[in-house]
Amino acid sequence: MDKRTELEKLGEFGLIDKLAENIKIHHASTVKGIGDDCAVIDAGEKYMLVTTDTLVENIHFNLMYSPLKHLGYKSAVVNFSDIYAMNGDVRQIVVSIAVSNRFSIEAIEEIYDGIKKACELYQVDLVGGDTTSSTGGLIITITAIGEVAKDEIVYRAGGAEKELLVVSGNLGAAFMGLQILERERQIYLENPSVQPALEGVDYILERQLKPEARKDVVHFLKTLDVKPTSMIDISDGLASEILHLCKAGDLGCTIYDEKIPIDQETFSNAREFNLDPTTCALNGGEDYELLFSIKQSDYDKIKDSEHLKVIGHYTDKNSGANIVARDGSVVALKAQGWNHFSAE
Amino acid sequence: MDKRTELEKLGEFGLIDKLAENIKIHHASTVKGIGDDCAVIDAGEKYMLVTTDTLVENIHFNLMYSPLKHLGYKSAVVNFSDIYAMNGDVRQIVVSIAVSNRFSIEAIEEIYDGIKKACELYQVDLVGGDTTSSTGGLIITITAIGEVAKDEIVYRAGGAEKELLVVSGNLGAAFMGLQILERERQIYLENPSVQPALEGVDYILERQLKPEARKDVVHFLKTLDVKPTSMIDISDGLASEILHLCKAGDLGCTIYDEKIPIDQETFSNAREFNLDPTTCALNGGEDYELLFSIKQSDYDKIKDSEHLKVIGHYTDKNSGANIVARDGSVVALKAQGWNHFSAE
Repeated sequence: MDKRTELEKLGEFGLIDKLAENIKIHHASTVKGIGDDCAVIDAGEKYMLVTTDTLVENIHFNLMYSPLKHLGYKSAVVNFSDIYAMNGDVRQIVVSIAVSNRFSIEAIEEIYDGIKKACELYQVDLVGGDTTSSTGGLIITITAIGEVAKDEIVYRAGGAEKELLVVSGNLGAAFMGLQILERERQIYLENPSVQPALEGVDYILERQLKPEARKDVVHFLKTLDVKPTSMIDISDGLASEILHLCKAGDLGCTIYDEKIPIDQETFSNAREFNLDPTTCALNGGEDYELLFSIKQSDYDKIKDSEHLKVIGHYTDKNSGANIVARDGSVVALKAQGWNHFSAE
Repeated sequence: MDKRTELEKLGEFGLIDKLAENIKIHHASTVKGIGDDCAVIDAGEKYMLVTTDTLVENIHFNLMYSPLKHLGYKSAVVNFSDIYAMNGDVRQIVVSIAVSNRFSIEAIEEIYDGIKKACELYQVDLVGGDTTSSTGGLIITITAIGEVAKDEIVYRAGGAEKELLVVSGNLGAAFMGLQILERERQIYLENPSVQPALEGVDYILERQLKPEARKDVVHFLKTLDVKPTSMIDISDGLASEILHLCKAGDLGCTIYDEKIPIDQETFSNAREFNLDPTTCALNGGEDYELLFSIKQSDYDKIKDSEHLKVIGHYTDKNSGANIVARDGSVVALKAQGWNHFSAE
C-alpha cells in the first residue's frame, strides 16, 4: 500500500465504480448487482430488492437541528425510496445503529420510534438489527428488502429515444430547508439568545428533516396503467440522477428549465439566499422524488396529474444531456451533486 | 426526553429486547423478526435469511494490528456465520462503509479486497453497498442474504430435554489472540522499538484477525443426515449463546467443563496470562463456531467427527443452565460476554 490516492479525487460514484471492478457473481439468483437503486435477487415467483444506506452524524445530519425521531424516520424512508425507484414495494428492514455513550437509552428509543413510525406508515416490517457503540458520532445503517413482480420491475436502463422524462412532486425544497437550518445554526452559535427565524418555512424544513418516499406515485402509476421504462429516485439532485439514467440507458436527453417543478416556498427562499432556484433543484439533493421515463403514448394518461411533471425527453446518446434555459440557450447538464468526500 | 437511562444499564441484549417492543408485523412473508441469528422471510419456495452486523473502529477492531484486508474478510465472515447458524447458505451481501478522509482509496480497496476474498471463498455475491465519509473512525456494516429450504431451517428454539449440545471446532482462541495483540500494542506504545513477540501464536492470532464461518459444518451435518434441532453461532462466548438457546427453547442445560474443546495454543497462552482457559471459552467470544443440539439417536452419526464435540445436554427449564466443573461441583452459567456499552 505505497500509493495513496485521496478519496475526493474519485468522488462517490467513481469510488463505487472502482470497488465494483472484478466482482464475480456466483449465483444465478443474483439478477442485478451494483449499479442500480437496488440489488435484484430472483426469489422464484418474484424478485426481491435489497438496498442499504448509511446516515452519519455531521455528514448527513446535525443533531443540533435534527430531532432524533425525525432522523429515525428519515433513515428508513431514504431506503424505502430506493425500493420504489425499482417499481417495487418495501417489505422488511434491518437496522444497524452505532452510538457513543453520550446517547441514553431514551435517545435510541426516540430514533427507533421514528423508524417504527415510518414502518407503520409505509407498511414495512422491522425484522432485525444490531446496536453497538461507537467512539465517535451516531451512525444509522438501514437495509431494506422489497419485492416486485418480475414483469413489473423497472431499472435505470430501459428508456428509449423520444420517451418522456417525468418527475414527481417538486425539487430543491429539502436543499433549501437545509440552508435555513444551517443559517439558524450559525446564528445560534454566534448568539444563543437569538430565537430561530423558522416562520413560513414549514414545508421546506419538513422536506429536509422528515422527507417522504413516493410509494403513492408507484401505486398511482399502476392505477393509470403506466409502467415507467426507466426510473431512479432523486437523492443527489436532478442533474446527477438524469445523468445516471442517460448513462445506464446509453442515451442523451433534453430537459427544460421552465418545466422543472419548484414549490413557491423553495423559490422565494432561494431568492432570499441569492441562489438560483433551478440550481437548487438540479444540484440540491435529498428530494426523494422519482424521476422516470414513459412512452409518448402514455402521455395522455398522466398529463392531468398535479403530482407528475414532464420535464423533457430522451435523445440519442451523441446529443448529450442538455438543459434548455428560459432564454432558449442550451447548456450541458453537469452533476455537482454531493461529494461527501470533498466536504471535509 | 426528560429521563436519561445510561446504555450500560441494559446491556446489548436488554436494549434489543426494549427496542423490539411494540413492533408490528404487517406482512405474512415475515416469518421471523428480531430474536434469532437472522430474520426469516418467506420467498415462496424457500426462506430467505437476512442478517446485519457492524464493526466499529476501536470497539470491534484496532487498526494498529488489524490489517485492512483481514478486517474486510472478517466483517463479511461474521455475517456469513449468522446465516449458517440457521442451517442456510449465504447468497448475497451488501456492504456499507463509512470512512474519514484519513483513509485513501487504496485503503478502502484493501478492505474490499478482503470482502471479495471472503465472497470468493464462501461463494457469495457482493451485490451492492454504500460508501460514505465519517467524521470519526472506520465503520463497516454488512448485511447478508441467505436462503434455506423450508424444511431445513433451524432456529434457536426447537430443542428438547435430553437432546445433546454440540459445538464445532474449539473455543476461546480468538479471545486469546486478542489478548496477545493487546499486550503487544501496549508494549509498542511504551516502546516502539521493541519487536512484537508473535511467534508460536499464529493459530490464535488468525482466529482473531481472520476468522472463518462454519459453512463446512453445515454441509457436513447434511452429509451425515443430521439436522440440528436448535442452533446459534458463537459470537459472544459459549455461555451467552447457551443461555440464548435455553431461553429460546424454554429449557435448561447441563454442560461439562472437561468437554469444552480448547486448542492447546489457546490453553497454554491462557495459562501464561493467568487466565482460566474455560473462562476464555465461556466468555471470550468471536469464535464463530456453531453451537447446536441433536437428538440422542443422532449421536452415533457424529461421535467420530474430530470437528464436533458433545459438551452436554438440554434439561428442563427449572433446573437452570449449569456447568459441571472438573471437581464435580455444579455452577450456574452466567453470560459475561461482551457489553460494548460498558467498555468505554
